[in-house]
Formats: sequence, C-alpha cells, structure tokens
Amino acid sequence: MSGLDLVIAGGTVVTAADSYAADIGIRDGRIAQIGQGLTGADRIDATGLLVLPGGIDAHVHLDQPTSDGTTMADGFASGTRSAAAGGNTTVLPFALQIKGRSLRACVEEYHQKAQGHCHTDVSFHLIVSDPTPQVLGQELPALVRDGYTSFKVFMTYDDLVLNDAQILDVFEVARRERALVMVHAEGHDAIRHLTRRLEAEGRTAPYYHGQAHAQIAEREATHRAISHAQLIDVPVVIVHVSGRDPMEQIQWARARGMKVHAETCPQYIALTADDLRGLNMDFDGAKYVCSPPPRDVDSQAAIWQGLRDGTFDIFSSDHCPFRIDATGKDTPRARSSFKYVPNGIPGVETRLPILFSEGVGKGRISLQRFVALTATNPARLYGLYPQKGSIAIGADADLALWDPTLTRPIRQAQLNHGCDYTPYEGMEITGWPVRTLLRGRTIAQDGVPVGDPTGGHLSRATSEAFA
Amino acid sequence: MSGLDLVIAGGTVVTAADSYAADIGIRDGRIAQIGQGLTGADRIDATGLLVLPGGIDAHVHLDQPTSDGTTMADGFASGTRSAAAGGNTTVLPFALQIKGRSLRACVEEYHQKAQGHCHTDVSFHLIVSDPTPQVLGQELPALVRDGYTSFKVFMTYDDLVLNDAQILDVFEVARRERALVMVHAEGHDAIRHLTRRLEAEGRTAPYYHGQAHAQIAEREATHRAISHAQLIDVPVVIVHVSGRDPMEQIQWARARGMKVHAETCPQYIALTADDLRGLNMDFDGAKYVCSPPPRDVDSQAAIWQGLRDGTFDIFSSDHCPFRIDATGKDTPRARSSFKYVPNGIPGVETRLPILFSEGVGKGRISLQRFVALTATNPARLYGLYPQKGSIAIGADADLALWDPTLTRPIRQAQLNHGCDYTPYEGMEITGWPVRTLLRGRTIAQDGVPVGDPTGGHLSRATSEAFA
Amino acid sequence: MSGLDLVIAGGTVVTAADSYAADIGIRDGRIAQIGQGLTGADRIDATGLLVLPGGIDAHVHLDQPTSDGTTMADGFASGTRSAAAGGNTTVLPFALQIKGRSLRACVEEYHQKAQGHCHTDVSFHLIVSDPTPQVLGQELPALVRDGYTSFKVFMTYDDLVLNDAQILDVFEVARRERALVMVHAEGHDAIRHLTRRLEAEGRTAPYYHGQAHAQIAEREATHRAISHAQLIDVPVVIVHVSGRDPMEQIQWARARGMKVHAETCPQYIALTADDLRGLNMDFDGAKYVCSPPPRDVDSQAAIWQGLRDGTFDIFSSDHCPFRIDATGKDTPRARSSFKYVPNGIPGVETRLPILFSEGVGKGRISLQRFVALTATNPARLYGLYPQKGSIAIGADADLALWDPTLTRPIRQAQLNHGCDYTPYEGMEITGWPVRTLLRGRTIAQDGVPVGDPTGGHLSRATSEAFA
Amino acid sequence: MSGLDLVIAGGTVVTAADSYAADIGIRDGRIAQIGQGLTGADRIDATGLLVLPGGIDAHVHLDQPTSDGTTMADGFASGTRSAAAGGNTTVLPFALQIKGRSLRACVEEYHQKAQGHCHTDVSFHLIVSDPTPQVLGQELPALVRDGYTSFKVFMTYDDLVLNDAQILDVFEVARRERALVMVHAEGHDAIRHLTRRLEAEGRTAPYYHGQAHAQIAEREATHRAISHAQLIDVPVVIVHVSGRDPMEQIQWARARGMKVHAETCPQYIALTADDLRGLNMDFDGAKYVCSPPPRDVDSQAAIWQGLRDGTFDIFSSDHCPFRIDATGKDTPRARSSFKYVPNGIPGVETRLPILFSEGVGKGRISLQRFVALTATNPARLYGLYPQKGSIAIGADADLALWDPTLTRPIRQAQLNHGCDYTPYEGMEITGWPVRTLLRGRTIAQDGVPVGDPTGGHLSRATSEAFA
Repeated sequence: MSGLDLVIAGGTVVTAADSYAADIGIRDGRIAQIGQGLTGADRIDATGLLVLPGGIDAHVHLDQPTSDGTTMADGFASGTRSAAAGGNTTVLPFALQIKGRSLRACVEEYHQKAQGHCHTDVSFHLIVSDPTPQVLGQELPALVRDGYTSFKVFMTYDDLVLNDAQILDVFEVARRERALVMVHAEGHDAIRHLTRRLEAEGRTAPYYHGQAHAQIAEREATHRAISHAQLIDVPVVIVHVSGRDPMEQIQWARARGMKVHAETCPQYIALTADDLRGLNMDFDGAKYVCSPPPRDVDSQAAIWQGLRDGTFDIFSSDHCPFRIDATGKDTPRARSSFKYVPNGIPGVETRLPILFSEGVGKGRISLQRFVALTATNPARLYGLYPQKGSIAIGADADLALWDPTLTRPIRQAQLNHGCDYTPYEGMEITGWPVRTLLRGRTIAQDGVPVGDPTGGHLSRATSEAFA
Repeated sequence: MSGLDLVIAGGTVVTAADSYAADIGIRDGRIAQIGQGLTGADRIDATGLLVLPGGIDAHVHLDQPTSDGTTMADGFASGTRSAAAGGNTTVLPFALQIKGRSLRACVEEYHQKAQGHCHTDVSFHLIVSDPTPQVLGQELPALVRDGYTSFKVFMTYDDLVLNDAQILDVFEVARRERALVMVHAEGHDAIRHLTRRLEAEGRTAPYYHGQAHAQIAEREATHRAISHAQLIDVPVVIVHVSGRDPMEQIQWARARGMKVHAETCPQYIALTADDLRGLNMDFDGAKYVCSPPPRDVDSQAAIWQGLRDGTFDIFSSDHCPFRIDATGKDTPRARSSFKYVPNGIPGVETRLPILFSEGVGKGRISLQRFVALTATNPARLYGLYPQKGSIAIGADADLALWDPTLTRPIRQAQLNHGCDYTPYEGMEITGWPVRTLLRGRTIAQDGVPVGDPTGGHLSRATSEAFA
Repeated sequence: MSGLDLVIAGGTVVTAADSYAADIGIRDGRIAQIGQGLTGADRIDATGLLVLPGGIDAHVHLDQPTSDGTTMADGFASGTRSAAAGGNTTVLPFALQIKGRSLRACVEEYHQKAQGHCHTDVSFHLIVSDPTPQVLGQELPALVRDGYTSFKVFMTYDDLVLNDAQILDVFEVARRERALVMVHAEGHDAIRHLTRRLEAEGRTAPYYHGQAHAQIAEREATHRAISHAQLIDVPVVIVHVSGRDPMEQIQWARARGMKVHAETCPQYIALTADDLRGLNMDFDGAKYVCSPPPRDVDSQAAIWQGLRDGTFDIFSSDHCPFRIDATGKDTPRARSSFKYVPNGIPGVETRLPILFSEGVGKGRISLQRFVALTATNPARLYGLYPQKGSIAIGADADLALWDPTLTRPIRQAQLNHGCDYTPYEGMEITGWPVRTLLRGRTIAQDGVPVGDPTGGHLSRATSEAFA
Repeated sequence: MSGLDLVIAGGTVVTAADSYAADIGIRDGRIAQIGQGLTGADRIDATGLLVLPGGIDAHVHLDQPTSDGTTMADGFASGTRSAAAGGNTTVLPFALQIKGRSLRACVEEYHQKAQGHCHTDVSFHLIVSDPTPQVLGQELPALVRDGYTSFKVFMTYDDLVLNDAQILDVFEVARRERALVMVHAEGHDAIRHLTRRLEAEGRTAPYYHGQAHAQIAEREATHRAISHAQLIDVPVVIVHVSGRDPMEQIQWARARGMKVHAETCPQYIALTADDLRGLNMDFDGAKYVCSPPPRDVDSQAAIWQGLRDGTFDIFSSDHCPFRIDATGKDTPRARSSFKYVPNGIPGVETRLPILFSEGVGKGRISLQRFVALTATNPARLYGLYPQKGSIAIGADADLALWDPTLTRPIRQAQLNHGCDYTPYEGMEITGWPVRTLLRGRTIAQDGVPVGDPTGGHLSRATSEAFA
C-alpha cells in the first residue's frame, strides 16, 4: 500500500456504474488504490472536478492517404495532441490497405508513421479494401493473432467499396478468427445514382452531398450488412449511424436476437443537413461534408433517444480532418461537384465536450452513460478492457479530470488539431476536461497538450461482442 | 339486346366484388348481357357451376432458353394448352433479353415462337438482362409505348443478375415511362456464398438448394429492392414471395406509404423445404427445386394470412417447367451439385385448383378474394383491365366454369403440360374448372384442351399501380 | 328478359371490382339485367353519369334520447331524407337500450319511431348499455335470430360505458350467436381524468374537448378492445378510428392474425383539432365536438393511407346531429364546460360527396375502393349482402347516379338534415349524387328528397366477418 | 488510510461496470479503500472468490396478511435470514394498505413487525389499495417526503385491484411527488372471465390458473398501464414481466420515448406452465401458482434476450411464500378451485444463484449485467444509491462473496425460508454465495445465516427514473 507515485485527490470518481468521492492512487502508471486520504509522492488536487476514465475515441482517421492525393490535416502527432487536449487517452485510427498491396505491409507503414509521435495510446483497426485469398487466408488471421482484432469494411467509396461477396468473405474470416467487423453502411450504387442525377441537374454545391447520401441508402445498407452478418452468424458494428431510419433497422435486428452493435458521432447530434447550405448554398458548406451526412432535428432526437436507451454502444468522433483551404477541401474539382469534396470533418478534440455539455449537462444522459459510451464500451467492444476504459485497480491510470462547470465556446483558435476550422465554431460548451493523464503522466492541461509523445500502440484482445 | 351468340345459363357469376345467379350473354366474343332468362344462338348450361373470370397467370416461363442449354419443357403450344385446361384464358410469359443483344429483337423472337400456337391469350413481360444505354434510352421506352408495360429484373442468377446500379437505371426508366417492374428478390452474393460453403461440405444434394437460398437472403434483397424503388419513387412488384421474413418487409414498407405490390405462388402454400429431401435426400428432391424455395409451415401460415389480408395482390404460378429426365433436371452436372439443377417447377395448370381447394374450399379466403388474386388484380396490375380480368359488360368473354364440388387428386397422367411430373402428385383437390372459354370459344373442357390455338398477343396499358 | 320496369341507360356502372358502360334493367325493384341497349317501361338517361350502388351508412344516430334530455336534430324522417339526398339508400341507426329496461322493448320503440317515416331502408344496430343476465342470456340471442346481428358497446360516456367484464360477456354472446360487435374505443377513466384536470385549470372551452379525448386514450382502448376480442376469439369492428395511433394497433393486430375490422369517418379526413378553436377559442368550436375528436394533419394522412391500403373496411358518417342553438349544443351547462357539449356532428348527407371529392377526385382512392368503403363492405360486414351493397343481378335496385364533374360547395342552406349547421360549410366538392333510387324508385334528385317514405326495416344475416 | 476494521483480501471485485483483482478495506461499516495489499484489524480471505455488491431484492412480500386469512410463510426474521443466506443485504418488502385504513398506520404496523427482526436492511414499498382523497392528498405526499419513494398498484386481485381512474390518480401524485409506481399488470376482468369459464367447464386444478391468467391479459394490462403513465407523463415500472407479449409492448413504448422500466423474476426463466400440471394435473401444481404464471420456452428465450439487451432493468424474486400444507396453499377451498390457491412462491434465497448459474454460468449474461440487474439497478431505481448497490468508496460495505465454481443442487432441506418447499427442488446450480456481509458484518456463511438481526429500515431518495 506504500509507495504511491501520484494521488489524484479530492475529486469525484466516475465509472460506467458509479460516482463517488475518492482519491486515486497511482503506482507505475497504474491505478493502485482508490480510497479516502491517500498520500503519495506527488499529488493533484481534483477538488470540484470529476475524475473520468480517459476518453477512448474508437473511430479516428490519421495520416490516411486519399485516392485523389489530398493530404489529411492530421498525422499522429497533431491528431493525438488534439485528442489528449480533448480528454482522450487512447485513439483507434485505421490502417488502410491499399488495393493490390499486402495488408501486413500497410500496417507496418502505419506503425512507422505513428512510432514516436503519439501523445495518447493508439491501436489500429484494419481497413480491408482488397480481400484477396492471401489477405483472407493468411494475413488477416495472423494479424488478428497479433492483436489487430477489428476490421472495417466499406459499402461505399469508389476506392474502398467491397461488394457483398467480399463482405461475406470478410465476415467468415471474422467469425473464424473472432475479429469484430465495423461497417460503413451506405449503399454505393444508390449514392452514385443520386449523384449523377443531381449533377445532371446542375446541383453541384456541397449542400447536395447530403441529398446524394440519402438516409434511405444508409438504411438499406444497414439492413444489408445486418442480414449478411446474421447469415454468417458474426457480430458486427454499424458505425456512424446518422438517423432514425438506420436506427430502426438496428433495433429491429436486436429485438430478434441479432448481434448488432452501433456507434454514433457528434455530427449527428450537433449538426443538420442545413449546415451544408453554407452561406447561401456556397462552398462554405464543404466544412460539414462527411458521410453519412448530418440529417434533421427529428433524427437528432432519435439519436439522443438511442444514446440514452442503449441502441448505441459507443460514441466516437469519426475524426477525418481536411483543411478547408486548397490543400484540403477547396480544390477546383471539389468546386465543380460535391462528389469531389473530401469526405470528413475534424472532431477528436470536441467529441467529449459536446456530448458532456449537450448530454450530461442538459439531462439527456447520465454521467455513467457518458463514461460507458466514450470509454468503457469502446474498450470492451474493441478488446482493450480491462487495461483501458475504466477506473479500476490494476488498470492503466488513464484519466480525464473534468470541470463540469467551466463554460466557454468551441473556438478553432483554441484547438490543437491540424485542421484550419472546426464545424462547431462558437458552440457554447459547459464542462471541459482540464487535465488528461496517460498512465499517470499528464499529457494535456487546460486544453493544451503537454510533454513528450509517450503513447504506444496497443495489441488488443478479442472483442466482448463474442462473449 | 338481340342476337346473343352464346348464353352461359344458370350459373353463379363471381367477380372480385360479387356472387350472384345470372346468365351471361356473349356477342362477338365479349360479354354483352348479364341477367336472368337470357337466350342466344348457343347455350351452355352452367347449373350448379361457378362462372369465374378466366384465370390470368401473370408469371409464366415458356420456351425460354437457359444458359446451360437445357430445354424448357413447355413451348407456347403445350404451355397454353395446359393453362387453358387449368382454367386460364391469359398468361403472361417472359420475353428474355439475351445479354449483348437487342431487347427488341429478342421480343420479336418470342413473338415468332408464340405466333399461331397459343390456346390462351398471351402478353410478354420483358426481362431486362443487359440494360445498356441503348436499351434504357431507346428500346425500353419504345417497347412500353408498344404495350409491353412491365419489366422484370433479377437480383440473382449468374446469367440474369443486375447489380444495384443497373436496377436503379431500370427503375428510372420505369418511372419515366410508367412501366411496372417485377423484381426477383434474392441476394445473389449471399446465395453464392452459402452454395460454396455447402459444396465445400459435400452437401450437394438437391435438398441443399433450399439452404443455399436462405430466407434471410430473400428478405435482404426484398428490403433492398423496396428501398431502391422508394428512392426512385416508382412502384414495384416483389414476385414469388416465399415466407414470413420478406412479407414483413413488404408490410413494413406499405405501412410507411411505399408503393409495393406482392405476388406469391402455389409452391409456397403447398410445399415445404422438406419436399426437397426427396426420398432420403436423393435426387428426387430436384422435382421441387425452384427459387425462392418452399419454406416451412410457419411461412405457409404467414402466406395464407397475407393472401387473406391483402399483403398479396396476386397469385401466380411461376410456371417454369423442366422435365425430371436427362433432357431437363437430371444431368450429370445437376447430380454433382444442386446449383446445376435447373430452377423451376411446372404449375400453370394446377395453380387455380390448388388455391381454390386449399383456399376457398377450406375457408381461408373468399371466392371474391380468389377471383381478385387470380384474375382481376393481375389484369389491373399489368394493364389488361378492363378487357380482361372480370365479368363485366364489354369485357372479353374469358370465363372459367367451375365445379366447386368435384373432387379428384392431381395426377401427372391427366395434366397437359410438357413436363413429365408434377410436384403436387396425388394432392386431393375439391373444385376443378370444367370448361374454359376464351372470347366466348371453349378452349378446354373437363381438363382437356379443345380447339385450335386462337390466342393472340395483347398489348397492355399502363399499370394501375401508377394510379 | 321482357318486362323491365325501368332502365338506367348510358351510364358507367361501378362496383367494388369494376367500372364499365352498361344499361341497368330493373324489374320489381330489383336489378334484372345489365347490358347494352336495354329497354323498359321507363328510362332514366345516365349519360355522363356514374351508376353506383346506393350508399350504405353503417353508423348513424337518429332520434336517440340523450341522458341530459337534449333533443337530437334528426328523427327518421329528416335523417333518411338527408341520407337519400346524399346518395344513400340504406342507413344503420342504433336502437339504444335504456339502462334498466328490456332491450327488446327499446328496439320496439325505435321501430315505432321509424315506422312509416323512412325514405331509405334502415336496419338497427343494438346498443347494449345494460348487459343483465336476461339481456345476455335471452334477449340478445333472440334478437340476433330476428336479424339484429350487430351490437355496439361503448368504452366511454357516463350513461353508456360498459366495464371490461361486461364487454367480455357481450363478446361471449356475440361469438356464440355470431353477432358482430362494434366498439367505441376511448378510455373512459383517462378522459374523465383529463377533463377534471382541464376544468381545474379553467380550460372549459369546446376546444379542450379535443385535449380531454387524447389520442392515447383512444389507442389504449383500441388495444384493450382488440385484446379482449382476441381472448374470446370473436371478430370486432373498431368504429370511428380517428388517427395514426389507434390505426397502428389495428395493423399490429391484423398482422398477427386477429380478426379486427375498422371504420373511419369524414371528420377525420376533413377536420382537425384546430377547428374546435372556433373563432378565437369561443363556443363556435362546439360545432365540431364529436368523439373521438378530429386530430391533426399527420393523422389525416394516416387515415388516407388506411383508406387506400385496406386498414379501413368501411367509411361511415357517425351522423349524430345536434343543433348549435339552445335546443342542442348551446346550453348554459355546455357553455360552463366542454364536457356538457353534446357529442356529435351531422354528416349523413355529406359523407359520400366528401370522400368522392377528396378521395376519388384527388386520386387518393379508386372508384372501386370508394364503392367498397361506402356500400359493398358495409353490406357484407353487417349482413345486408347480397340484397344490398352492389350492382348485381337479383340485388335491390338501390342506386346512386353520380355526376363526377359537378362542382359546388357544401352549404347548410342546401342540406336536408334537421341540423342548423354543417361542420363542412363552404367546402368545395367536385362530384355529387344527382339521383338516388331505392328499389328502383327515385327518392332524391339533385340534392332534394322526393316521394313518400317507402323505406323499410331490414332483417340482417350473419356478418361475413364470421366467414 | 489507517485503521481499516476489515479487509476482504484477494478476491475479484465486481461492479456493474468492472471486474478486477483488489482488496476491499472497510471502516465503520463502509467501504473505505479499494486496492492492493490492504491491511486491517480483521481479514477475510477471498482468494478465488468474486466479491459482489450484496443483492438487493426489490420485490419481496413478508408477513403480509391475505384477505382470506392465510398466513404468509415468512415474517421479517425468517424472510431476511433467507435473503441473507442467498447473498442479499437489502430487501424491499411491501407495506400493504388495508382498505378503509390509513396508509400511514399500515406502514407503522409493518415497522413494528420488522423492528428488531431484520437480518438484512429493508425498505418498504407502499401498496396503495384505497386511494382516498386523504391518502392521495395527504398521506402519500408525506410518506414520500419521509423516504417511502415507491408505490405499487395492482390491476388485478379482488382485494387490491384499482380501477383505471384510481391508477391515474396515483400516477398524478407520483408525478408531483416524484415517486416511482410499480404496476402489477394483469387485466382483472379478463382473468375473472376466463376463471369463470374454466370453472364452469370443471377445470379447477391448479394447472388452470395458468390458463386463466392468459398472457393476452398481461399484455393488455401492460399496454394500458404504459398508456396511462404516458398520459400523465410519469415513469413506471412494469413488475414481474412473464413473457414475450408484454415485453413487446415495453419495447414498443421505449422506442417511442416512453419512460417504462421493467422487472422480471426467476420463475419466468426456470419454470413453465407445464410445472403447474403437478403430477398428472394434481394439486402438486399449486406449488408453482403465482401471478403472472410461468409461460413457455419461447417466452423464456424472450426473457433471456431481454435480460441481456436491457429490456429488463431489474431482476427480483417476487418472493411471496405460502406453505404447501394446510396452513398455506392446501385448503379445501383451494382444492375446489385454482382461484383460491394463494398466489405466490418463495424465491428470495434462490434468486441470485439461479440467475448466476443459468445466466452468467451459461454465458447468457455477463457478470456486470448480473450485478446491474440484481443490485445496482434496483438501488438506482428505488433511491438507495449510492449508499447501496455497488462497491464504491463511501458505500455501505454490503457484500456477497461468491464461489463461482461451487456446484450443488437447490434443496429445500438447505434453505432458510419459512416455506416447506421450493419450486426449484433439485435444480443444479453452479455458483453460490459463501459469505454475505451487511455493513461489514457477516450475516450469512455457507448458506447459513449468522449473527443477530442488525438490519434496519432505509429511507429512500427519489428514483433515478426521474433523472
């Protein structure tokens, strides 16, 4: 019991189950004691603060090449600094297989990109874009055994889309190897069809991205993905669910015993399709172009209901940052048609404050649900638990100290990402993280990343979706 | 009022709305009078009989080439003779586009095959297997204007399957030209995936056809087709619905105002997956191989409920006859795997007796519903009304005289199709057609076709689905 | 074939299944011939007109005493004159059992009230308000055998409400005797509770009637009635369904095979809760007070969907006329609280024009569906078929000749009911009945009743709901 | 950090969120430290054991008089001894208002019955059987302020049933005072109706209790209760949900945002209606008579699904013990009809082992879900949190030490309740509590209660259902 390195004193400890006043004692980067009156070599006064498990952002894109050569606005350095400032201690970026290449080789490249630059811990999901027999039969099984226990597949995007046959093959491998598949569920052909029609009508402004990516196309793909997972008998995560229609499919499937997990994101509670109008239908709408796109207030209400009632297991950012300038979204091609606007918005730093302020602060969800959605469930779903995701003896001392009363707006000027704008500019937030600790070391304070990049890559266990 | 050519006297006239005792007076092949005490040049005594609109079988395959060269067991002569014997006066076969060829040219070939051989009237649906710009932009619009107002698309079968992009294109044409699209809704990739797995396990008997064509795959494709039709805002017919799961999708869509029509067939009320077992899992099961396959008793109950409550608009045979001998189903390839067994079973002659006996006779549906499902609704849905489909002044005198008390089993020996077996061998039926009249001329009597082939091809109007 | 008394020549005959040009020949008050070129002793030129089955209004209140002594604005004379002018040939009023009295005796009184005064045919439904053992065990069985084959029960109204035990008892009798039970499904206790709360808040204007009769209370009672019918295994009709919520229960029940029929009324497609505001929340809103009350535009859309898709079997007026003056709605008590405003609005004369104009005219329903909802289905559901409800050989020559192009607004000044207002004042209608015939005799022409009261009371057969 | 009274050392701590190896340090009856290597004045070795929050049984009947004078088999002494032996540290019995009496006075009597006899902590729910204006306006508000923050209402039982008006009144008070209402949802009139019919048919054996209490009646009452709660806008708990049909209503309501909580019990996963057959339909079936009754295997599967997916918030025993001898169930009256068999079965001691063994042991639910269902959620829902329901600093040291590998059958001979049988006789269980601690003091060990009755009555805060 002796020899605590650090005590977080006087705060209110919050887990997915509980809230209580206690000190937390840390030794060797892990939580060693929870109790009253702890003493240690060092001490952080958390009086008046909430002590939460560090956020786990399970859906983050960093330093991913795009097929048209656009540079993503965040690499591992800026991306994880931004994450840390926003209360996160672990992020799960994607290692993207380039078609025609070995998935293992691609993973190695992401390790090289990340190595020595991470301010939070990271762990890669694998994006399977080319499920060759070699990939399915050799690489994926080996990678799962090495701790890459989740794959993502895309049902849309020209350079990423898998057809149903390929997805079924991936599902088979996932079932056999007990890997969890994340699905981007939007119907590719439907989107292309609508896009062509809109373009033919001269409707090329960013706003029409939202019409091309119709909710019906998302609902259809959700049903399709769920059905194929049911056919193979494998659990699946429908990521970034945007509205009432795909939610209905998920609820329908669950009530029939299918193993469907679901994720939603800040853009679906804080933005609507109208944001894509920009200023009078101009290119400013490109700031909000992501897929699926934000929907309407009815879908926002549905998403909140789902965050509360358990329809959603996890709440991630889908951070996918492109600058609004000529290096990112604002290219001649993008000006010629919404379909060339890079899809994605930044959000790794604002995810937790938005959900805290709009959710906990406005009485829509409890503190416990907040922790479950943002840390515990992601850890459990993606095989990081019990090392990550909660405040428990023996767990990594990954903590976010939270001032629930601090009120200030979101301002691009104060964010740490590599992007040159935030879609949430000016949004009033009450409740901000004031200190983030990774394995007992402070990595951010008052919104500013501090210290060297000490984050590492985490090998992950089998998802609890297989329990 | 004078000069009736023929009077059908003393029967009970049945329409989709009514039943009443009346004579029917026919002049120039049309119904000219309905009333009591009619007299005419000729007279048929219908005492004790029901006088029904001649059956319209809206889903019939005749003389269609298969990609592996198998001969279909019925051409237009035997197929329409069989239909006539079974109480039908109109059948709607398919004109199949061969990939790479002009659809118009294919249609012409079917006209040549049919010309002079039809004992009932016929009208071709178009199967679009190769929706080239030429077909979409020129041929289909012209064909619709020429009275071919319905298309069929396939979501499965290697040689027929369209992908979603192609189906969306066809839907666009259909909306613009006001043509009705029939969808064979089974998920191709899912079926192929299951097939490969079953084959890998050595499960190659005909029985496994039913497992490969899982109901989940049909449900998924049904949801997909409905969603795409909703996206384009075009009505659609889901044909040969086999069970409870796709039905649920159709009901769900309708309750939300989507324009979805539905068809089911005798095999889904009179057969189950167990029939495909044959005798101890042997090749005899091939007699029952069709797609979608028969399901289970729970699905049969659901189908009956749907026939009664209006979930189904029409009841067709999906007559698709292959002999069980070496010229049809029983080939070395088919013995090597269920996937080579030609898909389809005969049924044009037994459709009406089965529905009458099992439905009307057993109190599951009313006589009005029987007529609606088998004649009036097909006529309305496919643009044949008011010339066909009912007993009304001015309509063609297409009639089936029905003895509701006649009891005898279905026997291959007494059928008139070109097939060498019936999947319903020995099924006890009460209620048989005893005379069929096409435009006032008797074309079958007591189960035997009579007379020359006087049937013609019908140009069709826009479907009432567009009303 | 000779000796037709009357020929309706040159019109378009419409049934629930068909539309076709034909003459109709009438002999002895029945339809004897349908055909081309008929001649008879008399002749009505129907060129350019639709010839429809006379409307059957299955839900009409005439000369019913109210517990507070208010006089109903229509007796059998004015009520049936109004009905005839509105295209109806049969109405089904209620014979109301006074609590404590013999039901048979009450029925006799209604016969006396009706005798010699009816311009259409009539047939009484029985309202069971006091299901004593004598009533359940003796009177109801005897009355059913005498042709009173439908009962109505109320789940609300202080003087009429039956508790669940009583309703279950009535359902048992109905099952045994094969009588059809109509249910007024609104939750009495819920309405009283809300009423008390609104009164306590000083919310006593007629407008608050709509809030007291919350749709939730109707939905709950609908579920309850359906469940109890399911428990007893007896078919049931939910009458005057007002909105989306109770409809959802009916659809849910049907999809599970329960025997539920449903009725809706003009007020649920042509009025909304806002009409009860009157002029600035004044007493003028009392003109629209009925139960259930009109809802909102979303429910109107749902009702239209249900009229089209078969959720509703029948469309009735629920004619329940009270004058807006001091003899009817405008009493000191009614001014003191909405709960004393007599519940009910007139509508027997406007039912058919409203559904025709808004439904057929605006493409929401077909002519066939119009006939089914307003004539054929009511006849079938309430045991009047085949004597009534269609145009068929042998049926009563009850016809409405309809000018589908005649456009004029609804005006109280031109109506024939005993009420001093119409809730539809000024509503523009295209399509009016121009002549109504009862058993071949004209009873109304151009909106004016003609001739003596030749209507009689009809004994009814078992409902087809038992088929 | 010094001066721990007791350390539970070496076990695996389990909360609704987490599992981890840690010692628990207790001081003054509360949890003071959680960590590694704790020392204290006393020590319990928990090596190999799970350390769980003590069970909270939120639905227990003790020493309640029945209207026919039957003695309940457990008073507070034996009931809480039995609870303690079964791993519970708090039970929530009912204080039953006798009709015509003051609720406050009744509560006082229960305090007298309980005082000094409790081996676990207890807290009374209030059963409102006579909601007079005095009770609604004065007593309930005062009692809520005194910490009796939950009421139960019955929709059935002759001596307890409230009508809908009364329930609405209670709901109003509950909303105003922020008290949580528990509803026994079975339709009284439906049950009585079925009972009379069964009796008339001579079907009086205990088995027919299950038929009289039809699942339809439970579903209907569930819909009714939910609708009335929705109308008043108050949260509600549907207790002892037995099967798929009422579950469907709860899920339907939740998906529409209604505030519905739900409880189920061991009898609905471990028994079926067939158990009521006894030995060849004899009186032995009375051992299983409870309301709602156990259903079928399909409902068992649905209940498991609901326990896993969150449909159910809590899992309680509904312990309601009657001996099977002449002092309890086996009376001449009960032999004459099932309706006189006292309703209720014992279960407070077997609740946790059954759920652990069948649920956790068989992989149907996680350990976290087990703790949530049996301790944390009941504490939150009924205002005992954070004093009770979890393992957290500052919480009462109420713990159950659990041996997850201990296998032995349930045997009446080894139970501590006052009942003379268990409905689960012989059921094989793996996983038993081996020690129970209440505020740091051992109250049971190896299935045997130890020590004096040190339990007290707990005043409760507002339910989190109002958050």
